[in-house]
Amino acid sequence: MSNLPPDIQKALGKLVYLDEPTRRANSGDKWFANAMPDAVAFPTSTEEVARIVRFASQHAIPVTARGGGVGYVGGCVPVRGGIVISTDRMNRIIEVNPQDGVAVVQPGVRTAELQDACSRLGWFYPPDPASRKDSTIGGNISTNAGGPRCLKYGVTRAYVLGLTVVLPDGRVLTCGGRTHKNKQGFDLVGLFCGSEGMLGMITQAILRIIPAPRARAALQATFPEFPAAVKAVQAVLQAGHLPCALEIADAFTLQAARRHLGDAIPADACGHLLLEVDGADDAVATEVRELTQLLTDLGATHTQAALNEDDIEALWQLRRGFSESLKATGLTKLNEDVVIPRSQLADFVQYCADLQRENSIPIACFGHAGDGNIHTNIMVPRNTQGEELRSRADALLHLLFAWVLSHGGSITGEHGIGLAKATWFPSAIGSVAMELHHVLKHALDPQNIFNPGKMQL
Amino acid sequence: MSNLPPDIQKALGKLVYLDEPTRRANSGDKWFANAMPDAVAFPTSTEEVARIVRFASQHAIPVTARGGGVGYVGGCVPVRGGIVISTDRMNRIIEVNPQDGVAVVQPGVRTAELQDACSRLGWFYPPDPASRKDSTIGGNISTNAGGPRCLKYGVTRAYVLGLTVVLPDGRVLTCGGRTHKNKQGFDLVGLFCGSEGMLGMITQAILRIIPAPRARAALQATFPEFPAAVKAVQAVLQAGHLPCALEIADAFTLQAARRHLGDAIPADACGHLLLEVDGADDAVATEVRELTQLLTDLGATHTQAALNEDDIEALWQLRRGFSESLKATGLTKLNEDVVIPRSQLADFVQYCADLQRENSIPIACFGHAGDGNIHTNIMVPRNTQGEELRSRADALLHLLFAWVLSHGGSITGEHGIGLAKATWFPSAIGSVAMELHHVLKHALDPQNIFNPGKMQL
Repeated sequence: MSNLPPDIQKALGKLVYLDEPTRRANSGDKWFANAMPDAVAFPTSTEEVARIVRFASQHAIPVTARGGGVGYVGGCVPVRGGIVISTDRMNRIIEVNPQDGVAVVQPGVRTAELQDACSRLGWFYPPDPASRKDSTIGGNISTNAGGPRCLKYGVTRAYVLGLTVVLPDGRVLTCGGRTHKNKQGFDLVGLFCGSEGMLGMITQAILRIIPAPRARAALQATFPEFPAAVKAVQAVLQAGHLPCALEIADAFTLQAARRHLGDAIPADACGHLLLEVDGADDAVATEVRELTQLLTDLGATHTQAALNEDDIEALWQLRRGFSESLKATGLTKLNEDVVIPRSQLADFVQYCADLQRENSIPIACFGHAGDGNIHTNIMVPRNTQGEELRSRADALLHLLFAWVLSHGGSITGEHGIGLAKATWFPSAIGSVAMELHHVLKHALDPQNIFNPGKMQL
Repeated sequence: MSNLPPDIQKALGKLVYLDEPTRRANSGDKWFANAMPDAVAFPTSTEEVARIVRFASQHAIPVTARGGGVGYVGGCVPVRGGIVISTDRMNRIIEVNPQDGVAVVQPGVRTAELQDACSRLGWFYPPDPASRKDSTIGGNISTNAGGPRCLKYGVTRAYVLGLTVVLPDGRVLTCGGRTHKNKQGFDLVGLFCGSEGMLGMITQAILRIIPAPRARAALQATFPEFPAAVKAVQAVLQAGHLPCALEIADAFTLQAARRHLGDAIPADACGHLLLEVDGADDAVATEVRELTQLLTDLGATHTQAALNEDDIEALWQLRRGFSESLKATGLTKLNEDVVIPRSQLADFVQYCADLQRENSIPIACFGHAGDGNIHTNIMVPRNTQGEELRSRADALLHLLFAWVLSHGGSITGEHGIGLAKATWFPSAIGSVAMELHHVLKHALDPQNIFNPGKMQL
């Protein structure tokens, strides 16, 4: 409480909590770092957020917005203390409106909850980060979240039509709106999407929803060689298919999965693909048949089609089990989400295999092959702790990111920069882009009170 | 030449033209306004653009980028003179790369030319503004262009992965890149998309391309009452169809079309829908059959399916003929591109009919019903000229835009603000958003030399 003005409780009353357990519970995410905020606020409305931010602005107190707290880059860690504003009590779905094709939500709504609400009306909110049961829409927008379906449906940005944002001086901005197109001036909605809480705090969102596809189907295929699976990714797209998801996994991941999940993965599998298609009822079955033939021709030794919801879910359970299987190896899994141009996929996995051999640290690759967004898991021995773990991991990440950047890639496709990737951020985007980040940050938040200390800004 | 420093030819040599015919040819677009630039530059590379901009920056000379010159809002009109930078000689498709799913282009490439280049490889660049044969990719990005297919495929922004931009001080920014996902910092790519040349000049773009759908089909339907057509729009989406295009036309438009195009439109038609679907071969035929049944059940008195390219093209020719038919009425057609929440469609067209009756000026509505983006054509008697035309049109637009804004709509979905809508812009976006526009403009272009005088900035 030392860094807060003594009149905070008088000014903000029951909006803020100063007790140690609440502060501790809001001090970190899924990454290493932790930092204790001086206070945690639980507003229920835009007006209450604005009141808190005006107070913070007057006293130059740091403000860090917090959604589900399930990020991977320390994005919501209040490294300079101050007030964490939680969206826990801003969790209302205000409206799901198929006539307008929109949903209006408060930022604390869980992604899965919104998806379910749309689904019950026969409508569809496509963005599907793996964390969707725990992550919030506000967090999704702040990181421009992705997921497997982005291949066909695009990332979160493509579904945000309008925002209400509390700016760092406490003014309330509304931008965009309820319409599916809007060319009124600069793209302010886009400016706040993915800005990781550094330019403003999102307090309401108008999202685009679309008619739910009538049917879906899935197909998994395994290959005795990883490069054959990579070749199949290109062949699927080149044949005119645009699956909603096109996921790949490498030999290390499959080996861990065999150990953890039993014999669902054939013993000879060194590459695994999972495809999901959606559309009209007949069409998806036909497409899965065509894809089965195509993948078999390309050397798949085992294929399994899933044409009903239970079977599809079982394949996704298996896919989701990959992450659990890696954790079950007894190694500490550091999950990176690099993106490479799709043509570099085979070379990238080969580079990871080389790195693994040279450094005796296993690297497991799986993820969204269709858009080149590969979750690269550095598997550090569990007895490596604290500083040693950080330094071994950092050394490897340095090599990994250097390779990615020199091959036209991006060091993050979904998780963001936050704290975890701040070191590499300036070299990833280049000096002019970095200068522009400073210009934008200073223009919108001259006191640097919104989520300070992230992205090296 | 009076406003230019005398050393311009020495500094920029053959890059700039000062002759009157060249300046005149680069003074306007499809809207009313014209303004003579002091010079016109025809660079061929980013480096040449940067050289011109550095010179302009040193001398505080206005710089206005110019693509195809086919905008509807005076966006490329150099209202304060200075240098127009044409992209005419930056018209190279550098690469179409299916393996990475990207195309790399200079800004002067015509939209249709890129679409054709992708199509030849079995790939697809979806954005399809009506002007696609004349408009350029640079212009499309600067206005975040749309078109009928945006309903399914999204606007231009959804296809821009990376940009090279010359900033107002001559620095060269590269942002985004070749990857399909990129969460490296703020969304700089989005900041320049739709910024109407006011924050920087785009000199290269990396675009996302997708596998071309294997087949497409179309269906037109006419209804004896317009509200029945509107009801059908909702029913199509509610039944789980997401057509690539879902176009509507009102009674006035159909009447003009009957006069101009002959009996392709039944005499009793007061509402017209054109739907296009795409996907697998069998699926599109099945979908068109289902849609035909659905629309017939909803009161369509005439339906026509098109299952091959020639027939589909014939239906689109007819639809494109609506615009020509309106011009052939002998009235001056002022094309506005308002967007309304989809549920407001029937009320909006009714309001236009009321306006028409009260003001004795016909208003014809047709356009992208699926996303609520209706081209609203105010048909001013041709003997109305100059100031009188402007003032009659402005009075009507004032009423129209007021209705749109009070019903949650946007005054432009595709064309942008430019000069034409600058008057209404501040009230359309509100005071805080307007302040933010000033902040951004000042932060990136403190001398206000990039496309000055637009958007009231």
